[in-house]
Amino acid sequence: MAVSTNLYYEDLQVGMSFRSRDHTVTPEDVAEFARKYDPQPFHLDPVAAQDMFFKGLVASGWHTSALTMRLVVESLPIAGGIIGAGVDELRWPNPVRSGDVIHLESEVIERRTLKSRADMALVKFRLVTLNQRGEPVQSMLPNLFAPVRGA
Amino acid sequence: MAVSTNLYYEDLQVGMSFRSRDHTVTPEDVAEFARKYDPQPFHLDPVAAQDMFFKGLVASGWHTSALTMRLVVESLPIAGGIIGAGVDELRWPNPVRSGDVIHLESEVIERRTLKSRADMALVKFRLVTLNQRGEPVQSMLPNLFAPVRGA
Repeated sequence: MAVSTNLYYEDLQVGMSFRSRDHTVTPEDVAEFARKYDPQPFHLDPVAAQDMFFKGLVASGWHTSALTMRLVVESLPIAGGIIGAGVDELRWPNPVRSGDVIHLESEVIERRTLKSRADMALVKFRLVTLNQRGEPVQSMLPNLFAPVRGA
Repeated sequence: MAVSTNLYYEDLQVGMSFRSRDHTVTPEDVAEFARKYDPQPFHLDPVAAQDMFFKGLVASGWHTSALTMRLVVESLPIAGGIIGAGVDELRWPNPVRSGDVIHLESEVIERRTLKSRADMALVKFRLVTLNQRGEPVQSMLPNLFAPVRGA
């Protein structure tokens, strides 16, 4: 289908899927995020990282989440923007390493109206971020608000 | 208790709790994170934000997560560092706004050894990030790896 730039609750049907552009993760970005938000040696010190849990330098899982959010904003054209009501089952099955090329695949898995307000509904997505080998580097099940048409 | 700088699985008992320092969220940080990772008007445009979902400028939920990770690294002295095996029930019950002063309160809620490896175990925490009014701005249940002493 042609993707609308403003999808409402009524448009977001179970099984509908989206794919983002590819994004290359640079060593500078990995280091900058880690310095600010996750200053641990396996994100910052390539020599020390060799002998640690991941056997080499990896991006912070929260950096993967932040980069994924960027791809969500770019590839899920929900009217009024992307507003999350919470996330279940956030997982990082494989680490992201510098130079990896990631993209996001999104699918609608549940949807429901709200008793508390008529103008907004909730759409649950499965969001899987994959690397250039097709390996998942992050998966999660967020509930996103979607406006009800004409409400 | 005096907090060890290197806690192992054996040290992390259910009910044990930790508190981070206070951290002030600046407008510059909110804008910088949003430009890079969550470029939506309610994070970037103070005028447009007045008429949108949050009725004013707010930090990205993923910015709150990233800032929380910084406070986790500083306040949970697990031997070998903070390595997450996944997060359940990530919620943002109240938005973070520029100028808010946040801190993290952490509590051990479950712990278990692993069949797949003897040197590492899993400790589940409840992590609640609070603002200066004591309102929760984020809560989540991560499983963190903790090394087994002497393994």
